[in-house]
Amino acid sequence: MASEQSAAVRAMYERWTVDRLNGRPMDPESWGDLTAEPRGVDYVETDEPGTPAMWLLPHGAAADRVLMCVHGGGYVAGSMYTHRKLYGHLAKAVGARALLFRYPFAPEHVHPAQVDAVTDVYRWLLGSFEARHIAFAGDSAGGGLTITTQLNARAAGLPVPAAVMAISPWVDLELTGRTWSTNAETDGYFYRDFVDGLVELYLGPDGSRRDPLANPLHADLTGLAPLFVQVGSHETLLDDSGMLVDRLKNAGVEVRLDVFEEQVHTFQMAAGRAPEADDAIARFASWARPRLGLV
Amino acid sequence: MASEQSAAVRAMYERWTVDRLNGRPMDPESWGDLTAEPRGVDYVETDEPGTPAMWLLPHGAAADRVLMCVHGGGYVAGSMYTHRKLYGHLAKAVGARALLFRYPFAPEHVHPAQVDAVTDVYRWLLGSFEARHIAFAGDSAGGGLTITTQLNARAAGLPVPAAVMAISPWVDLELTGRTWSTNAETDGYFYRDFVDGLVELYLGPDGSRRDPLANPLHADLTGLAPLFVQVGSHETLLDDSGMLVDRLKNAGVEVRLDVFEEQVHTFQMAAGRAPEADDAIARFASWARPRLGLV
Repeated sequence: MASEQSAAVRAMYERWTVDRLNGRPMDPESWGDLTAEPRGVDYVETDEPGTPAMWLLPHGAAADRVLMCVHGGGYVAGSMYTHRKLYGHLAKAVGARALLFRYPFAPEHVHPAQVDAVTDVYRWLLGSFEARHIAFAGDSAGGGLTITTQLNARAAGLPVPAAVMAISPWVDLELTGRTWSTNAETDGYFYRDFVDGLVELYLGPDGSRRDPLANPLHADLTGLAPLFVQVGSHETLLDDSGMLVDRLKNAGVEVRLDVFEEQVHTFQMAAGRAPEADDAIARFASWARPRLGLV
Repeated sequence: MASEQSAAVRAMYERWTVDRLNGRPMDPESWGDLTAEPRGVDYVETDEPGTPAMWLLPHGAAADRVLMCVHGGGYVAGSMYTHRKLYGHLAKAVGARALLFRYPFAPEHVHPAQVDAVTDVYRWLLGSFEARHIAFAGDSAGGGLTITTQLNARAAGLPVPAAVMAISPWVDLELTGRTWSTNAETDGYFYRDFVDGLVELYLGPDGSRRDPLANPLHADLTGLAPLFVQVGSHETLLDDSGMLVDRLKNAGVEVRLDVFEEQVHTFQMAAGRAPEADDAIARFASWARPRLGLV
């Protein structure tokens, strides 16, 4: 059974749903309230990557290994402030520094503004770090961007990173998963109609739901970096993870999928409080460390 | 009437009271969840002051002005993590850097371990900053320490700082205030019996409730720095502020007391969310800036 602490994530989504259905403004910053302070991590804001960004610097971490962290929020919300602590936990566990940053939001900016912006940050990181010392990490929409950014980078002649960690990645813009219906009663927030509206905002009037740079289920995934996906069994987005992992496996990419029973979308936000979230972060770290050459 | 956002502070205290009365462990870290991220502030941990500490570095702030921030928590709880955002807001508003740090807790360490530890940090700061460029800030027990540390520093031949900002300072260890009874129904957490137990933990078996270094209402307050106290009208600790300000005024010290209607203890923790908290931070900043030589 899900821990009492992890239930706080579900409770937040249910509050957001009630707010949404009642036309009240939601407070996306409360997302970050789920996470305990990782402690022993410094936070330094910088504009050097060409966009507002924040270094997460765990004390004692390797200075030449880095996680490029792409926060989630449906391409319309989230920030380096809401996700500072989540990725602080991950960076501390891995023993690497991490970079969080702002990227353009819909509807003011539509695809491919997001994947281009993340690719620009990756290109900037490659100026200081070897690709084999870089891992991507992302959650939800940011999880999708960890895949599409690799495609975009490959097209630009850039190397892929050493490893990718995706939390509940959102990739299927056609919303074809069975779990849209089978998990409709356990998810609490990501109802099909609501997410369908987010797709429209993200793609804009001229976008295609099968554009491989927006929906990697339609892309050639050959040669992408090893991927570790974590997802909750109660998510409507559960099948996104399954389909993504299947496509990558068929393309010969090393993949691992861990489904966490009775957990909801981005339950890792309860890091430092819920045992399931701490377990998930620890699994990511022990998987990523050897791939980044950390022992 | 108190804003909906500031009601979150009261709700947290009431939850703590229910937990306490039911023998459940309280989660003091949830205190920090009340505060929005200040943004544009870097956080860098350091052991240089001789105790675990954290620099709060607002972008664009004066590098030669500093707030020594003493977090609250009844001498038994609180941390640089729970109070990072509160004092980040204050440092950003003042336009100075700030230092938060760990000091010893009761009952493992009793008075005067706390005031001595804070005095050591102040002495360390005086190695890099002029006293006229240092302000103290503190909340609750930390507010008391902003006063007793001045007394301790004066006895050691150190200069007083330029200014002191105290949030709901706790100073009267004899618990003589009328508001212990008149505000018993509006406070929600600081019931007399509970706080009486904290006094015993803080002083230990051999301490005196009239020790001037623990209870500054019994001290010679002549020559202390200008003080700005903010307190909520619904606090059982309201009279602590009134008595402290009266004593200082009689000693010829410049004082200002702002009582915020219908607010509870350390309501400023809702900074970035509740209008009363933002108003309070702004009042502190416009009061402190000229006293630190900032225009």
